[in-house]
Amino acid sequence: MDVSPRLLVVRRGKKEESFHRGRAVVVNEAGERILSIGDVEAAVFPRSCLKPIQALPLVASGAADRYSLSDAEIALACGSHGGSPLHVATAQSILKKIGSSCDALECGVHWPLDSGESRALAARREEPTVLHNNCSGKHCGFLAVGAVRGLDVAGYTNASHPIMREVTSAISLMTGVELDESQACVDGCAIPAFSMPLARVATGFAHLGTGKESSPSLADASTRIRTAIMQNPIILSGKGRADTRITEECQGDVFVKSGAEGVMAASIPALGYGLAVKIDDGAHRAATAVMANLLLQVLQKHSLVTAKAVEVLKGHACFQLKNWNGTDVGSIEPISLNGL
Amino acid sequence: MDVSPRLLVVRRGKKEESFHRGRAVVVNEAGERILSIGDVEAAVFPRSCLKPIQALPLVASGAADRYSLSDAEIALACGSHGGSPLHVATAQSILKKIGSSCDALECGVHWPLDSGESRALAARREEPTVLHNNCSGKHCGFLAVGAVRGLDVAGYTNASHPIMREVTSAISLMTGVELDESQACVDGCAIPAFSMPLARVATGFAHLGTGKESSPSLADASTRIRTAIMQNPIILSGKGRADTRITEECQGDVFVKSGAEGVMAASIPALGYGLAVKIDDGAHRAATAVMANLLLQVLQKHSLVTAKAVEVLKGHACFQLKNWNGTDVGSIEPISLNGL
Repeated sequence: MDVSPRLLVVRRGKKEESFHRGRAVVVNEAGERILSIGDVEAAVFPRSCLKPIQALPLVASGAADRYSLSDAEIALACGSHGGSPLHVATAQSILKKIGSSCDALECGVHWPLDSGESRALAARREEPTVLHNNCSGKHCGFLAVGAVRGLDVAGYTNASHPIMREVTSAISLMTGVELDESQACVDGCAIPAFSMPLARVATGFAHLGTGKESSPSLADASTRIRTAIMQNPIILSGKGRADTRITEECQGDVFVKSGAEGVMAASIPALGYGLAVKIDDGAHRAATAVMANLLLQVLQKHSLVTAKAVEVLKGHACFQLKNWNGTDVGSIEPISLNGL
Repeated sequence: MDVSPRLLVVRRGKKEESFHRGRAVVVNEAGERILSIGDVEAAVFPRSCLKPIQALPLVASGAADRYSLSDAEIALACGSHGGSPLHVATAQSILKKIGSSCDALECGVHWPLDSGESRALAARREEPTVLHNNCSGKHCGFLAVGAVRGLDVAGYTNASHPIMREVTSAISLMTGVELDESQACVDGCAIPAFSMPLARVATGFAHLGTGKESSPSLADASTRIRTAIMQNPIILSGKGRADTRITEECQGDVFVKSGAEGVMAASIPALGYGLAVKIDDGAHRAATAVMANLLLQVLQKHSLVTAKAVEVLKGHACFQLKNWNGTDVGSIEPISLNGL
């Protein structure tokens, strides 16, 4: 088995303390590789990276229009949110518009991903509900598809349910990967989890950015999804979180989406590029830093980046580690990416 | 550079999703290797693994006796606690006995490590204090050394302060590594952080288990530290946490201590063995599972383990991953360790 290259070093003082190996790829809209690091044909589970693609049927089915969903509500369907009151209210609003309720959601309950939101919820003496699940927006989107199609939504998270089949088909069309529902694993929020080559995750994001290489209805849906995300980065993830800050500061040039276990994908619509990173060990800290570094280099090469965006991307790619007293104790440093 | 072997696989369904590489070593009290996986001479930062060794001066200086510290209070000085009210009260009790206060602690403030304790604190509408810092017990121990020695404790976290020199000297004696205070990096709680070969961390834990290979006062102190930890595993870390559960269930046969960035060390006093693990990428989940697997194999070989301990160790080494609905979605599986 190939050993993935080292992509990020964690230093204590000047000495290496830990490091992360992984793979990264940039493709154009034809799926051709612009940059490739490590074995990008090996399978990964894109997990929540796929949410913007899994949300395509919400638009393509006509549900978003039928129920007059706002861009913020569509962005929530694409996001892994931090569980703030705004996120919860946005999910509730979708449910109200489609005439459904929390009881229909099959994603399960967890405390907000954002530890500050979690403590704030506890301070209000409340318990988390299914709406605080970081995937609640995506699931509300699935229910909207069920509603517009007039389907019985019970068991909608099963791979063989018509809603999931529509979602799986969108993933196939966008990534070019044939997916067999009988081979599906199960994701954290109960829906099918498929694996595919890392390069195909990037291809899916290239297509999401351009709308090309897919059906006309998915192309239109891609445009709506892209706009919704870029105009509502705070809904996609949460204040101060990487997906939000990068998408926010790149001001329409980029959107990114992270997934569990060290996966992150991005789209640069103006270039028709899709990017994907997988950290072998599943570390989110490394996926974020490596993706920020990759974006920085691609965007700078094409003069697509503002000074503020450079600052934000650099801040995610390479930074000092501080202890509880605010003293510098080390650093996170990406390894230089050649070949761009 | 050597590539460390794969030690743990994270599966989604039956497929590999992530994996961790690392190094592991078991030594006897003479420092001879019983088992060695990967480059165990390469330097690691043992970080909080060293706490039981850093607590030796608390006993050896006479401070523990002078201030009538209980075993629970000594265990807190060896631990990375979860920030429960019991942990906070135990730290307060040390400060009271030595006539000091929170103001003297230089470890900084953070929300409790244990997310449940963090939310409970928020629900009480309280803010964390320096006592909630997972290292507060260790720092109270340092202040106790300062008190018994009649030292000015201001700046006690600096490598050149007499308290830190005494602590550094104890680390040197137990691990056999010459440490240069001018080469110290800085730990999360502001004290010096030294690096050393992984095998020497294991050697330190072998000596902590037997008291041999060190000065008579450190040997006596080792006995007291060992007893204190083994009788108060809940104080060492917290309810349900790995250090606590493993030390608790192994009923005097083992104590373990984890450190930041995927380091974990253990002592099996009856065999005179010290064990240490470092996960290259710094993942705690992998350090715990690999150490549990290593302990299981060593203890079973020497018939030193009860059925309950086997169950607990297996539960940390190899287990099903469940989603928010409680459905099995994958597994954590250690890679078999040969050579035992």
